[in-house]
Amino acid sequence: MLDSQVKPQERLAELLAPEMDAVNGLIRERMASKHAPRIPEVTAYLVEAGGKRLRPMLTIAAAKLCGYDGPYHLHLAATVEFIHTATLLHDDVVDESAMRRGRKTANLLWDNKSSVLVGDYLFARSFQLMTETGNLRVLGILSNASATIAEGEVLQLTAAQDLKTTEEVYLQVVRGKTAALFSAATQVGGVIADRPEAEVQALFDYGDALGIAFQIVDDLLDYWGSDATGKNVGDDFRERKLTLPVIKTVAAGDETERAFWKRVIEKGDQKDGDLEHALSLMNKHGALEETRQEALRWSARAKAAMMELPQSEMRDLLVDLNDFVVARLS
Amino acid sequence: MLDSQVKPQERLAELLAPEMDAVNGLIRERMASKHAPRIPEVTAYLVEAGGKRLRPMLTIAAAKLCGYDGPYHLHLAATVEFIHTATLLHDDVVDESAMRRGRKTANLLWDNKSSVLVGDYLFARSFQLMTETGNLRVLGILSNASATIAEGEVLQLTAAQDLKTTEEVYLQVVRGKTAALFSAATQVGGVIADRPEAEVQALFDYGDALGIAFQIVDDLLDYWGSDATGKNVGDDFRERKLTLPVIKTVAAGDETERAFWKRVIEKGDQKDGDLEHALSLMNKHGALEETRQEALRWSARAKAAMMELPQSEMRDLLVDLNDFVVARLS
Repeated sequence: MLDSQVKPQERLAELLAPEMDAVNGLIRERMASKHAPRIPEVTAYLVEAGGKRLRPMLTIAAAKLCGYDGPYHLHLAATVEFIHTATLLHDDVVDESAMRRGRKTANLLWDNKSSVLVGDYLFARSFQLMTETGNLRVLGILSNASATIAEGEVLQLTAAQDLKTTEEVYLQVVRGKTAALFSAATQVGGVIADRPEAEVQALFDYGDALGIAFQIVDDLLDYWGSDATGKNVGDDFRERKLTLPVIKTVAAGDETERAFWKRVIEKGDQKDGDLEHALSLMNKHGALEETRQEALRWSARAKAAMMELPQSEMRDLLVDLNDFVVARLS
Repeated sequence: MLDSQVKPQERLAELLAPEMDAVNGLIRERMASKHAPRIPEVTAYLVEAGGKRLRPMLTIAAAKLCGYDGPYHLHLAATVEFIHTATLLHDDVVDESAMRRGRKTANLLWDNKSSVLVGDYLFARSFQLMTETGNLRVLGILSNASATIAEGEVLQLTAAQDLKTTEEVYLQVVRGKTAALFSAATQVGGVIADRPEAEVQALFDYGDALGIAFQIVDDLLDYWGSDATGKNVGDDFRERKLTLPVIKTVAAGDETERAFWKRVIEKGDQKDGDLEHALSLMNKHGALEETRQEALRWSARAKAAMMELPQSEMRDLLVDLNDFVVARLS
């Protein structure tokens, strides 16, 4: 029996437990390497980190929602998780991160070299896995998503600390870093089940909008604060990231405020009290509330897309999951 | 008219000029990025570097040798070059290189972050290109090659500065860093032309053996010396790489010699005269000559494989190319 008080993600995990066990088995099998023992060392550490496996769950849920009864949703779910893990490994090198999910990062435990090369290995393994499905459209979708992810990361790198960053560029970065893999994860579930184009499109739209809402909420909580995320208020501020709350506040500010943002974000000259001042400017211009509205709009789009699909327990769970993403803001 | 005094690689380039122009066009088109201007900056720099384009030429040559008359050998050639370029970008980060082909490396001109992420972008673009061929076997071959390359790089990382490295491990590293892409490059030419399995296998064997001979020669010239390669004698020694000449010399040495290798390779404590002493030990144990013989054996295998294919101008050129690789040693 499913308990309605349980978070939607946990209910999904419970409902999809047999498939996710199979996916985890496939991940463990393909993360190994016959020749290079460093690879299973690093990958085992990542597997044990116990990520939420949200992306592969989206693929399995979408495939089941579409009535798929073949074996390849497992390969696609593992593919999606491999792409995600490879991206995390490379991100930690690029961001010079020391911690992720409360544990030391691989680049710190081993070195940047291992993170770069093991990430490459996982990318290659992900392409092997998706090739095994024999479905060329799926290959197109996932290779396009991989290009969008890398493009978004480069864009984020060059937009970093640049006050000229627009909301449009922010959206492209968000599509790259989060939504491209969400939308590919849900879309391939419909494609592998050979569903009509309108349903495949609805699954893509759901994943895209869910991913964007998810990332906007994440960026908002960095200033809004939350007990649940484990993020500290102001991490993005200290890292001088141009996220939506900052972009909106900069755009609404006068010359004096602009000078403040230039100092703290572009020059990185931050003092005690700067974060508090930044928050007061955000509140003054209503930027946090506007950002929240933006997240709610994307979440509404995700829900509308899902409503295009026939009603089922799985569909309702995906709608709940979407509601839950923005519920963190209320 | 082709001049027989011209190097085989230049004759190949002349003969394949129309296709290679098309490949270069495809490379330029797909290296671009609509959203992230840093990507074309870095990739244009790499394209201008004017690499020899040996790998894509192998694909075009193999496809033409097999009588292929479709358009997809161009996509496969560009794929192979993208995988190669992505690998170079990541290698330069891993090796902390400052120079390649006599020019500053991208990680030095921009930063390691750009090299990692633009490399990822090229990997993703390579998978898009190969997916466009619609040939699942080709996708399997190239995704397997990508995994072997990454595995070989990790193996090289962990084997670095380790005197216990065996000739077997060396061969695996060489397959990863060089031969896997050579063999995939030639094999896919036969697959796309739908040739019988024996010919596809012969093309694989040729690329594999050519790649291994090529790398062994490269590693040998680092001690043997050469005017043509632009490498300085002793670069690998200073970087403490376990290449075949060192592995053979260490294996043949006594306790005193072992202590020397431990100091210079494992501890990295190198003094004036150490390179000369290393060379004298190599000569004493005949390691350079044995390494040369090993390269000649692989070259003979490459030639034998090519002889399995029907005679043609293209086949003879590929045989000449193979002869030329080891001719640098005479």
